[in-house]
Amino acid sequence: MNRLQIFEQIKQKQSFLCVGLDTDIQRVPKFLLKFDDPIFEFNKQIVAATRKYAIAYKLNTAFYESQGAKGWQSLEKTAEYIKKTLPNVFLIADAKRGDIGNTSKMYAKTFFEHMNFDALTVAPYMGSDSVEPFLEFHGKFVILLALTSNAGAQDFQFLKNSDTTPLYAQVLKQGNKWANADKMMYVIGATKADKLQKIRNLAPDNFLLIPGVGAQGGSLQAVAQFGFNAQCGLLVNSSRGIIYAGNDKLFAQKAGQAAQILQEEMSVLLEKFMPAN
Amino acid sequence: MNRLQIFEQIKQKQSFLCVGLDTDIQRVPKFLLKFDDPIFEFNKQIVAATRKYAIAYKLNTAFYESQGAKGWQSLEKTAEYIKKTLPNVFLIADAKRGDIGNTSKMYAKTFFEHMNFDALTVAPYMGSDSVEPFLEFHGKFVILLALTSNAGAQDFQFLKNSDTTPLYAQVLKQGNKWANADKMMYVIGATKADKLQKIRNLAPDNFLLIPGVGAQGGSLQAVAQFGFNAQCGLLVNSSRGIIYAGNDKLFAQKAGQAAQILQEEMSVLLEKFMPAN
Repeated sequence: MNRLQIFEQIKQKQSFLCVGLDTDIQRVPKFLLKFDDPIFEFNKQIVAATRKYAIAYKLNTAFYESQGAKGWQSLEKTAEYIKKTLPNVFLIADAKRGDIGNTSKMYAKTFFEHMNFDALTVAPYMGSDSVEPFLEFHGKFVILLALTSNAGAQDFQFLKNSDTTPLYAQVLKQGNKWANADKMMYVIGATKADKLQKIRNLAPDNFLLIPGVGAQGGSLQAVAQFGFNAQCGLLVNSSRGIIYAGNDKLFAQKAGQAAQILQEEMSVLLEKFMPAN
Repeated sequence: MNRLQIFEQIKQKQSFLCVGLDTDIQRVPKFLLKFDDPIFEFNKQIVAATRKYAIAYKLNTAFYESQGAKGWQSLEKTAEYIKKTLPNVFLIADAKRGDIGNTSKMYAKTFFEHMNFDALTVAPYMGSDSVEPFLEFHGKFVILLALTSNAGAQDFQFLKNSDTTPLYAQVLKQGNKWANADKMMYVIGATKADKLQKIRNLAPDNFLLIPGVGAQGGSLQAVAQFGFNAQCGLLVNSSRGIIYAGNDKLFAQKAGQAAQILQEEMSVLLEKFMPAN
């Protein structure tokens, strides 16, 4: 996929919502446990109920790995199902990988070739040659961690370089040297919306993946107001707030309602704050 | 496992060698492909041939994930086999994970509970609450990336904080606030041996996992000379140099020979450079 195709989806659905499939077997409604693969069944129903409102889905690999080889199958099946059913939807593996070149290449093949994800979250700590193998795949995006939504972001991401550039800004600068906005996106936590204007100066064209709205407390309006660019430029993720909106036979319907509420807010914000194209 | 148990192994085997099972299906000898699980078969034979010389094994998850659910099974089976056959050997998952709290907790359960690894490599970028969930498991170690062996390490790890502390040193300082040497180790690339004296001042008691000897060009002697502490304090990893020493029916024997050569060098270095206990 490319940026224009993502923007087409945003305009069509009046939404910049990414639904996070952090599917925890402990939190799946009990009646689904009779299925051979309850996680896959849960995901299919969530996707069916939210597809009108979501332009992207994000699969958090930790939740699948926790179920061993069977969980890995659920991950593969879910990815395949989404790409087949909704080819225009942007599919993200939230795996936060990054290692020396030959190892990153292995990860890239896994997520981009074997499973056909459109994008992968990547940790920047190991630098250029740990990220480059992911950039070699046509039509795929790296989503580099820049400024994360959690409290621990304070520990290193704000450390100031001698020229007073904090580490997260240095990551944005380096990242934009490694690739342009057609291949590179960044993770920016919704809880850090006060930094979005500065970030937009450093990364004007890149899409930003924004976690932290909902359970983590970030404000959707602040994110939109300071984060939009002329292509919207935002993918705002909500995981727990949507997929666990209900916990009974109506769980999918409740997830759909939660997604719709966010989409309707987003529609208003797009109208109000998005700069003219 | 604890530090003392690792040190006992080091003294007994006169070795601080970690064998890296970066097992690539493309590089496994052809005659193994007739087995139901060629990767597991390869690993078993490598372990049998190197166990006299190695005190640790490190499984690089990228190589297993690249084979999908079947690769994940090879990972699980190899981990189980090593812990059962060699309970005194230190077993590392080289996965470089790290995410917000609830996600890191999932990864921790996967590697420490489900698969019973003794240690996991963790990326520091997201800070304290991304690392803490891994520290909650008794008898398990976090091996935090500090100064890595690859060229890209230059991009961020040497950025100097306003008080002139480079990022990797800041990671060591923070890491030692989060946990002591009984739970925390660090990754320090063998190619960065010139920094080892400084690193030993910051992390005197911690074990250091040292990749980059062999294929990546680091010097074993320099690492030992500047990196030893009174418990040896080093786990030097070699992957490709050992496991792909041969590529025919004698591959395991050749791997054993390659491991033995390193062990014999290590034995000399322990005698020559290790400070009196």
